[in-house]
Amino acid sequence: MRYLTAGESHGKQLTTIIEGVPSNMPLVQDDINQSLRRRQKGHGRGKRMQIEKDMAEITSGVRHGYTLGSPISLIIHNDDFKHWVDIMGEDPIEERADKKLRRTVSRPRPGHADLNGALKYGHRDMRNVLERSSARETAARVAAGAVAKTLLKQLGIEVSGYVKEIAGIVAHDQSTLTMEQRQHVSEESPVRTLDKGVEQEMMDAIDQAKKDGDSIGGVAEVYVEGVPAGLGSYVQYDRKLDSRIAGSVVSINAFKGVEFGLGFEAAQKNGSEVHDEIAWNEQAGYHRKSNRLGGFEGGMTTGMPIVVKGVMKPIPTLYKPLQSVDIETKEPFNASIERSDSCAVPAASVVMEHVVAFEVAKAITEQFPSDHFPKLKQAINDYREEIRCF
Amino acid sequence: MRYLTAGESHGKQLTTIIEGVPSNMPLVQDDINQSLRRRQKGHGRGKRMQIEKDMAEITSGVRHGYTLGSPISLIIHNDDFKHWVDIMGEDPIEERADKKLRRTVSRPRPGHADLNGALKYGHRDMRNVLERSSARETAARVAAGAVAKTLLKQLGIEVSGYVKEIAGIVAHDQSTLTMEQRQHVSEESPVRTLDKGVEQEMMDAIDQAKKDGDSIGGVAEVYVEGVPAGLGSYVQYDRKLDSRIAGSVVSINAFKGVEFGLGFEAAQKNGSEVHDEIAWNEQAGYHRKSNRLGGFEGGMTTGMPIVVKGVMKPIPTLYKPLQSVDIETKEPFNASIERSDSCAVPAASVVMEHVVAFEVAKAITEQFPSDHFPKLKQAINDYREEIRCF
Amino acid sequence: MRYLTAGESHGKQLTTIIEGVPSNMPLVQDDINQSLRRRQKGHGRGKRMQIEKDMAEITSGVRHGYTLGSPISLIIHNDDFKHWVDIMGEDPIEERADKKLRRTVSRPRPGHADLNGALKYGHRDMRNVLERSSARETAARVAAGAVAKTLLKQLGIEVSGYVKEIAGIVAHDQSTLTMEQRQHVSEESPVRTLDKGVEQEMMDAIDQAKKDGDSIGGVAEVYVEGVPAGLGSYVQYDRKLDSRIAGSVVSINAFKGVEFGLGFEAAQKNGSEVHDEIAWNEQAGYHRKSNRLGGFEGGMTTGMPIVVKGVMKPIPTLYKPLQSVDIETKEPFNASIERSDSCAVPAASVVMEHVVAFEVAKAITEQFPSDHFPKLKQAINDYREEIRCF
Amino acid sequence: MRYLTAGESHGKQLTTIIEGVPSNMPLVQDDINQSLRRRQKGHGRGKRMQIEKDMAEITSGVRHGYTLGSPISLIIHNDDFKHWVDIMGEDPIEERADKKLRRTVSRPRPGHADLNGALKYGHRDMRNVLERSSARETAARVAAGAVAKTLLKQLGIEVSGYVKEIAGIVAHDQSTLTMEQRQHVSEESPVRTLDKGVEQEMMDAIDQAKKDGDSIGGVAEVYVEGVPAGLGSYVQYDRKLDSRIAGSVVSINAFKGVEFGLGFEAAQKNGSEVHDEIAWNEQAGYHRKSNRLGGFEGGMTTGMPIVVKGVMKPIPTLYKPLQSVDIETKEPFNASIERSDSCAVPAASVVMEHVVAFEVAKAITEQFPSDHFPKLKQAINDYREEIRCF
Repeated sequence: MRYLTAGESHGKQLTTIIEGVPSNMPLVQDDINQSLRRRQKGHGRGKRMQIEKDMAEITSGVRHGYTLGSPISLIIHNDDFKHWVDIMGEDPIEERADKKLRRTVSRPRPGHADLNGALKYGHRDMRNVLERSSARETAARVAAGAVAKTLLKQLGIEVSGYVKEIAGIVAHDQSTLTMEQRQHVSEESPVRTLDKGVEQEMMDAIDQAKKDGDSIGGVAEVYVEGVPAGLGSYVQYDRKLDSRIAGSVVSINAFKGVEFGLGFEAAQKNGSEVHDEIAWNEQAGYHRKSNRLGGFEGGMTTGMPIVVKGVMKPIPTLYKPLQSVDIETKEPFNASIERSDSCAVPAASVVMEHVVAFEVAKAITEQFPSDHFPKLKQAINDYREEIRCF
Repeated sequence: MRYLTAGESHGKQLTTIIEGVPSNMPLVQDDINQSLRRRQKGHGRGKRMQIEKDMAEITSGVRHGYTLGSPISLIIHNDDFKHWVDIMGEDPIEERADKKLRRTVSRPRPGHADLNGALKYGHRDMRNVLERSSARETAARVAAGAVAKTLLKQLGIEVSGYVKEIAGIVAHDQSTLTMEQRQHVSEESPVRTLDKGVEQEMMDAIDQAKKDGDSIGGVAEVYVEGVPAGLGSYVQYDRKLDSRIAGSVVSINAFKGVEFGLGFEAAQKNGSEVHDEIAWNEQAGYHRKSNRLGGFEGGMTTGMPIVVKGVMKPIPTLYKPLQSVDIETKEPFNASIERSDSCAVPAASVVMEHVVAFEVAKAITEQFPSDHFPKLKQAINDYREEIRCF
Repeated sequence: MRYLTAGESHGKQLTTIIEGVPSNMPLVQDDINQSLRRRQKGHGRGKRMQIEKDMAEITSGVRHGYTLGSPISLIIHNDDFKHWVDIMGEDPIEERADKKLRRTVSRPRPGHADLNGALKYGHRDMRNVLERSSARETAARVAAGAVAKTLLKQLGIEVSGYVKEIAGIVAHDQSTLTMEQRQHVSEESPVRTLDKGVEQEMMDAIDQAKKDGDSIGGVAEVYVEGVPAGLGSYVQYDRKLDSRIAGSVVSINAFKGVEFGLGFEAAQKNGSEVHDEIAWNEQAGYHRKSNRLGGFEGGMTTGMPIVVKGVMKPIPTLYKPLQSVDIETKEPFNASIERSDSCAVPAASVVMEHVVAFEVAKAITEQFPSDHFPKLKQAINDYREEIRCF
Repeated sequence: MRYLTAGESHGKQLTTIIEGVPSNMPLVQDDINQSLRRRQKGHGRGKRMQIEKDMAEITSGVRHGYTLGSPISLIIHNDDFKHWVDIMGEDPIEERADKKLRRTVSRPRPGHADLNGALKYGHRDMRNVLERSSARETAARVAAGAVAKTLLKQLGIEVSGYVKEIAGIVAHDQSTLTMEQRQHVSEESPVRTLDKGVEQEMMDAIDQAKKDGDSIGGVAEVYVEGVPAGLGSYVQYDRKLDSRIAGSVVSINAFKGVEFGLGFEAAQKNGSEVHDEIAWNEQAGYHRKSNRLGGFEGGMTTGMPIVVKGVMKPIPTLYKPLQSVDIETKEPFNASIERSDSCAVPAASVVMEHVVAFEVAKAITEQFPSDHFPKLKQAINDYREEIRCF
């Protein structure tokens, strides 16, 4: 499985092509739309999230509710494009067209791709950068991930993304929660946290940030249950599954770090405190009594849940401005505001859920026969039984 | 640039093939051997590190001290192989050969690839797993990274890897140190730390762990200076340079997390405290007054140093044993010891330095013309001037 | 540069995403539509070609007539889809829905992907195969190639595809024709041949085949002028440009072979008759007096035009039926007809022109700096001058 | 499966790393050496072939006669390197070292990579090009292919490469020969042809060419039996197996074309004469009565043998010289001779056999579960039965 996305934030549409999905797998538009809707919720989102009601249209690869094995293309239309035709249209315009009409951007925002992208691609109008570097693109990645999640679900693998921390307020560990609870509780929470005890505090922090004209970040966690041991490989550095997931998480807009299991805490512990002892009984086969390593040893899954955290910085669009420089006049200015979410961590936890799901599904389709979905399902189940009896 | 490594821990040799290195770049064996030597140092390394004196032999791709543009193959011979011929030889042996002679491993060590690898690849002798999953392989990756570092150095890009934390003892920030100081101070320190104030404490912790029969982990940091702004790209998720570096760092044996700049600390800060304001003057062009984002915005370099941290768990080979299960008898046992480093973080910081260097060099050769090294050098310098005057 | 296509023959639309196109390159919809129109012409095309008027819509990556550097997505709508909603719609339908309503295909056509695809993907309705394996997909590849051609044209590289042979009628060599003549003459010819002397004969053969209820194949040639020497590389087998072009040509539906320059004729010649002697003068630099090798030595361009031929088998949809077996009843039957072109070689020569163009453009963007188009242009010109003076 | 090769013609050694070979597959050094020996035979080879006795050393990935699942590295030592240390050594030499000592090449040979490689990589000494572009590298590719062949053989898939034509002398079709006969007869023939009737004529042509100081080319054919239907895919252009094989064949040094089944002959035939009718019976399942398409429809195998031909031009190293230009003096000269095979087609047929084998094995390991060889074997057999009963 591989995918490419295309589309600008205020362009006509976002497009995703996903290649390598097995044939004869049930898939309907609503599998994807549900994911898109979940991405748009969350306390503290700006007005745009209310306006956009993202809907994916499947334009290929699915027939009568089943995948064909051929590439799946998904489109998320931008209903607002009609107001942006002049600014973002693909047709040539008169050279002299008013700078205002084009909404030319000559003022790079710190924390965004604006300046670096302009230098790299030679854009003097940084709208040419920000339209693509915008987090709007994550909708297309969620769409791809929704297909992956649908595949995983039917193989008995569930994925849940939620918020562990916002602005220093940490959700207490809920390691005893079942997958169903994780999915349900996070979905019901306006900040997607599993810890009711801190929920209100997190919401207050978001409101306060908004009032202060500031923004706040946080930590999202993704939890994957049902993955058999031995997914990924140690034989070459680029085949380690935790490595691929790490790359994938850091590729989400505004993410600055990733960790598995104990993660950075492992730096403070003794070896006797960070590993997961191995047990065996006839019914369960090999299993672990703990999951400090977050489901990975040697770049492969251990059969315990994958537990991965990602940190999102406060989004750089601020009421409280940062200093920058106009690239035309070279005059300093206070960085402008394009939009107004004060905290995007809840939504980001949904995005992260989907990019992690994609990597897991990809590893599965590489390792198991993946032309025909019913056979893939059988192969995974056979493997589960086989390693139970190893 | 791409590379593959091959080789088992007690096999004949490690092999690396590196493809895509420009032609006519000065490169000598000692550029690589220096890096290999640096990987073998460090307080707390086990005896094997003293025995092995890793030396790379260049077997192709270099002639008379210059690269040819053709693939570079590097070999690190294992002088000890003569004692392992029976155990690790490639020739078939009699089926009945003594289990002891083969040193068959039926007891998986928690925290290692042993069990998961056995399940995946169907190995009942887990020596077939551990020989490849061993951290010995990082020597081959250091060799590849040494070629990358040589390339970067000649483009005015320096890389330094050192230790930020061992067993909870944190080196105080030395953000004012020059690159030269970072390289020199870390090299002189037995624990590769920049903070003389905690060096002894770190060494004591290592000694104590050894005495206790335990192991300790820590955090390594890599610092890359001289990278121009605009390396990497925001246009597709798999072209973001920080994402690739993240994947690369987590692919190092025993690494459980990675972060850029403030990293996970960003979850506790306001937006006004995590971004890097943009300034400009005629001489320096665009620049930043701070480097909280660790040199990345939008998956691209900002022109500030790349600052990336990775966390290494305590290595799972322990005097103090963990419980596991023999896969033949299904009897529980206390996990055995293959070797005896109590702390590998200093060495790991050298490994991390090299894998980060490879990703940066790779991004450069993708973005700039990279057939002929003198032209690459010219192109980088032209670009530096160009963005200064943008 | 890389691209993926998606879409079924009678589905909503074809979609292409092209990644890695430099920024600030002039590109308008008509650059692509011209190519699509050229693919639809040709004596002997069936009725469907007259009905469909393929038009590409650019839905991302281009703004105000210039590329952004971000992925370009192109859509070719299928106006006829409204008649196919029931048959090809993505929504689930009632299990009992009439087989006729679905237009279920249980009869594989020899020469098509039908049977092999059904076996592989487990499709009992072979419509699930043929909708994607249809040559309709080549429209999406032409769209991608049109972007490549636009890039090449602006770098002084022109590409022309035309017909060398139809049903054994061979166009006489027109090696003295200029590129402009090749483009013009082929465009004016109903069978896209450069040889007016055989044009009528070719048309007659097509008409006769149609009358006989048979189909005929032929040979297309693509000619690329203006490519500098040294594109591609000999250092690794997967970097040879002729190899990539060969793979690309054979990937076109119904193509069964490919050859460069003398091609298979070289098997009958002496070494003294197949190579291209090297000459030099101050004005032209190094050049060749002949072009028997079709512009390639050692997997790299020689600076002479690329000359590559591909052979297309007669399309397997026939009036004169072939025997096959119904996969449900296992009864033999005479293979049915989905459409009715008796010769698609003229159109295929346009497709081949575009897939070759893509590989050449890809090799250029790999070898030269390709973030910013004006810089790429400068770099190519500098290189041309440099090798002239080498 | 993927592989990289490294090594210069007169360097220390050739190196191959092969990644992705399943674990627990029997593999011994002699599997590879047999292939290497076969590559060195053939009437008309120069003296060097007699001197070199290529032997592969397995340096990783195999233990006690079985693959480990980890990368396999293979080395072919160059015993003659001791005479080339000064000329090809990796250590820097004195700048003033005699041009003769270095055996500097300033005279590009037409038909070789020399000039284009020099222009591309900026080499004024074209030894830096020719050492890597030499056909010597094909030994490393044969080594990789030998591993693939060993895998295929154990899955019931056999591969045979032989000569169809030399210098216009065409072997008559032997389509009734069994695989065993193909392998045996070609092996016994000094020119690797299946047609005893033309064998002597081919040998005479080679002798005559040698006497004339000329060289001759020819056509090799590779025949693969036992491949199940449905290997490869039509869903995306880069997944078609015939396309990949085509790319692979053209990447062999001196190959200028490739065709499947009828190949270019299909341009002269009617549709009713080029396709393979589909039949079915209970015992054999679906099968074909002919194999005009060379085992491919829609980029996938049909279950019939793969039949692919490649054309090799006469090797450009000639007694009868071609005109060229010295790049230092710009004086014309008659192109010099590095070695003296007058016909390399028999050897090339062995190389082609191996590169085709690699692509087939790669497609199999992508499509079927390929971690553990016994399971791969089972999966292929299950699939064979499944499609028989489809």
